Amino acid sequence: MVIETQNEKPKHRIQLSKVGVKNLKTFVVTERSGLRHHIVPKVEITIDLPADLKGIHMSRLVESMTEELSDQFMVHPSIEEIQIKILEGLTQKHPFSRGEIRFDFEFGYSTRTPVSNKRTWEVCDVTSITRKVNDSPFIHEVEIQVIGNTVCPHCMANNEGLTHIQRAIGKLRVIGKTELIPTYGSMIDIIESSFSSKTYSLLKLEDEMHVTKKMHENPLLVEDVCRNILQHAKDAFSERGLDIFAEARSLESIHKHDVIAEGRIVTNGD
Amino acid sequence: MVIETQNEKPKHRIQLSKVGVKNLKTFVVTERSGLRHHIVPKVEITIDLPADLKGIHMSRLVESMTEELSDQFMVHPSIEEIQIKILEGLTQKHPFSRGEIRFDFEFGYSTRTPVSNKRTWEVCDVTSITRKVNDSPFIHEVEIQVIGNTVCPHCMANNEGLTHIQRAIGKLRVIGKTELIPTYGSMIDIIESSFSSKTYSLLKLEDEMHVTKKMHENPLLVEDVCRNILQHAKDAFSERGLDIFAEARSLESIHKHDVIAEGRIVTNGD
Amino acid sequence: MVIETQNEKPKHRIQLSKVGVKNLKTFVVTERSGLRHHIVPKVEITIDLPADLKGIHMSRLVESMTEELSDQFMVHPSIEEIQIKILEGLTQKHPFSRGEIRFDFEFGYSTRTPVSNKRTWEVCDVTSITRKVNDSPFIHEVEIQVIGNTVCPHCMANNEGLTHIQRAIGKLRVIGKTELIPTYGSMIDIIESSFSSKTYSLLKLEDEMHVTKKMHENPLLVEDVCRNILQHAKDAFSERGLDIFAEARSLESIHKHDVIAEGRIVTNGD
Amino acid sequence: MVIETQNEKPKHRIQLSKVGVKNLKTFVVTERSGLRHHIVPKVEITIDLPADLKGIHMSRLVESMTEELSDQFMVHPSIEEIQIKILEGLTQKHPFSRGEIRFDFEFGYSTRTPVSNKRTWEVCDVTSITRKVNDSPFIHEVEIQVIGNTVCPHCMANNEGLTHIQRAIGKLRVIGKTELIPTYGSMIDIIESSFSSKTYSLLKLEDEMHVTKKMHENPLLVEDVCRNILQHAKDAFSERGLDIFAEARSLESIHKHDVIAEGRIVTNGD
Repeated sequence: MVIETQNEKPKHRIQLSKVGVKNLKTFVVTERSGLRHHIVPKVEITIDLPADLKGIHMSRLVESMTEELSDQFMVHPSIEEIQIKILEGLTQKHPFSRGEIRFDFEFGYSTRTPVSNKRTWEVCDVTSITRKVNDSPFIHEVEIQVIGNTVCPHCMANNEGLTHIQRAIGKLRVIGKTELIPTYGSMIDIIESSFSSKTYSLLKLEDEMHVTKKMHENPLLVEDVCRNILQHAKDAFSERGLDIFAEARSLESIHKHDVIAEGRIVTNGD
Repeated sequence: MVIETQNEKPKHRIQLSKVGVKNLKTFVVTERSGLRHHIVPKVEITIDLPADLKGIHMSRLVESMTEELSDQFMVHPSIEEIQIKILEGLTQKHPFSRGEIRFDFEFGYSTRTPVSNKRTWEVCDVTSITRKVNDSPFIHEVEIQVIGNTVCPHCMANNEGLTHIQRAIGKLRVIGKTELIPTYGSMIDIIESSFSSKTYSLLKLEDEMHVTKKMHENPLLVEDVCRNILQHAKDAFSERGLDIFAEARSLESIHKHDVIAEGRIVTNGD
Repeated sequence: MVIETQNEKPKHRIQLSKVGVKNLKTFVVTERSGLRHHIVPKVEITIDLPADLKGIHMSRLVESMTEELSDQFMVHPSIEEIQIKILEGLTQKHPFSRGEIRFDFEFGYSTRTPVSNKRTWEVCDVTSITRKVNDSPFIHEVEIQVIGNTVCPHCMANNEGLTHIQRAIGKLRVIGKTELIPTYGSMIDIIESSFSSKTYSLLKLEDEMHVTKKMHENPLLVEDVCRNILQHAKDAFSERGLDIFAEARSLESIHKHDVIAEGRIVTNGD
Repeated sequence: MVIETQNEKPKHRIQLSKVGVKNLKTFVVTERSGLRHHIVPKVEITIDLPADLKGIHMSRLVESMTEELSDQFMVHPSIEEIQIKILEGLTQKHPFSRGEIRFDFEFGYSTRTPVSNKRTWEVCDVTSITRKVNDSPFIHEVEIQVIGNTVCPHCMANNEGLTHIQRAIGKLRVIGKTELIPTYGSMIDIIESSFSSKTYSLLKLEDEMHVTKKMHENPLLVEDVCRNILQHAKDAFSERGLDIFAEARSLESIHKHDVIAEGRIVTNGD
């Protein structure tokens, strides 16, 4: 006979907001608009725990995932749909008021070099979260982080056109209901168009000259990059009700430290 | 004549919540109750930026810090007081509505082995943040993270006393006004007393036997560790008005993933 | 007309052993024995540079990779064969005496829980390197890192059976010619069988009891785990001429630090 | 009566090259030429283990360190001397043929901004290793890593002076006998003088203009930076018998990946 330690009364009757598993790695295959993506997410699944129960049944959280992803050849329509299915499966196994599943992973997309027109692969970082609170609809949070660059306009203006240039990182995060969540591709486009220039895995000399010229014509502070991301997201998603966050970080080439800018807007979907 | 690019109008009139420097490393010496601490913090200093200004003057943020810390032999009474002085210096150099300074660093403390009574050094991770919003008093946030362990009570109860044991990480974060912030030492004690056992740099065999016996008498889930931290903090700080967060993470020895528990309480200081 | 800076004489005539690209991310699909694997490697490609040339043509290193991997639907027989093809392609584009390509990636494999017999996915870390030096045959280096655990036999023997248990990491690295390199699966098996117990993503209570009992019957120091990996590799690969390295690391549950053991053997293939 | 598990015969009689503790954190205060440094090293201490012994006595490794560093107010003349004392203490506690102690830490130094002449603090990464093999003299290995930048000369030459600029990391490692090891300060100077420009925590606008102009006059490939480090080290240390390694890495601003160059020279001290 099993002793259900989890159902005992805890020593201290304090409600816990999140209990679950973290840094659990798995495999997922998705296909959207004919493009197949193979991802290796680091998974976090958590639920809340009432004040009068000692613990949760951890293995049921993992099982709700392994049951959904057991077939390695199964192709899923999107990360959001997998996460919804896992949370729906979990409601059959374990009671909770607030459940959340988070995937952190690398996402690849193809592009072409600007002059030589060669095909290359680029990789960005994605965090995708699905939340279920009581009977409210599922809420999703998608954050994408892409590498670009900044060319300092302040130094350029004061220094006869000479300036410093550096690698920069742009982040865009949107929160909203299932049907409002944009594609990763549209979010990547917004971030890449917000830098002095986007970056490429491969640049032949003619591409490098083109990119370098273009970025000198578009000098930007991190403050500008952050506002560009917010404005581009607002323009693209104005008809959806989304909470939108952006961050720009510049790995300064004349300093050992970074500079950052963060902001937030809301599109009301009207 | 200097062109103040920062004072120009930005292309997109969007207010930014945080702009500043990050991953800036420096040195600080503090002394409290006769104990001297030498720390190498990673520093973040940020302020907000109104919608109609293109940028902030980044170098003034760094300068407000270097002026305060320029003398390597100067001994400061606490991290909180250094941070207040840096933010006060910054108000003389740059306008802002919301300013924040954050230090992430390793903090050392000495202990004694439980049986052989040998002196050892232990190290934990500290994040210390000071915030100034308009004319409100300074608000501080201190988070401490200490390594301990968990012994699984569920497995022990079902398995004739045999169970799994693992390294665990406890986190305690408090937010409140300057005069209410507890010492690092008191926060470390709270976390260490919340595990199945605290951990030591050095254990002779007699210590190891003592620790191992004691932890088998105190089997705890991460849920228990998290609630212990919250309850111990509540008991210790009940007379202060603090927001208190706790997290426990267990590097499971029978899994490749971790398990976590998080919670929050408020002491109202009445 | 292009100025070939790379072909100029360098200021200091010093030969460089490795010049190239690092932290370049891409996508690869492999299929071996009917099992398809989708990996997102972090890539390093380097060549040597003679003392009288200023630089290498970096874009040719990337191009030798993008040409081989441009088709996202192409399925490759193994990482080793992709790496050989990329180095062969590179010899057509750029002269070198010593060329090397390295992939670091996560690799997934399926297993079954020991009692409940449920299917789970496990993930380990793989580093795969192919080297070409002058006209010698290709040399490969494969390192695999898997998470398991250790149960301390020294504490157990002195403490009436009570002991400490912790997560551990086992590493196996083999170096040899193309036809001698073992499969990842066989290397994973060797590492997993060298711990007090292997670990699982999912364990139902009956599995957890089984695993916990078994690991108490198999207490091991990191020294034992390291020697087990070396001996198991020697037994399995005795007929191949391989350089074999092993490392075991234990995330001690009663300490904040880790303990490690490293060793090396050579199988002469006779 | 203690059961010395470590002295038992191991199941597999394989000699191990390194067994010990890793990621052990402690505190050290040093003073050299009137400058006091406070460091928080991550420590690794390892010894070899003969084929016929099951294990080492881990706690003796830690104890040899805690005995040397137990007094927090003690000021040591150098990291090298602390490491020698710890290894000498260890020879009294535990037999070994090959012993090694490694410290990884952040090291601070002061500089002045180039035009405004303000005092700033800079931080670099240091790895310091001391080795004892049988009765040979102590051997030291010091590696220092400093952040600077590169300005691409190839793009500049082909693009009417327009080019890309980025943060870069320079590494210098020297190996030799105690009396031959250079100061950290001299190694930092060598690395900083090898970039297009060194970097600063603080730059007022006049400094930024100065630095930016100077770096455009000194465009360098990573290959150039690596050779500069090697040549400068050769010039400075020609009269010492040292093994010298250098690495340069550039966080490319037009790519998501890095480019690297590595090389090695030997000064024979004649």
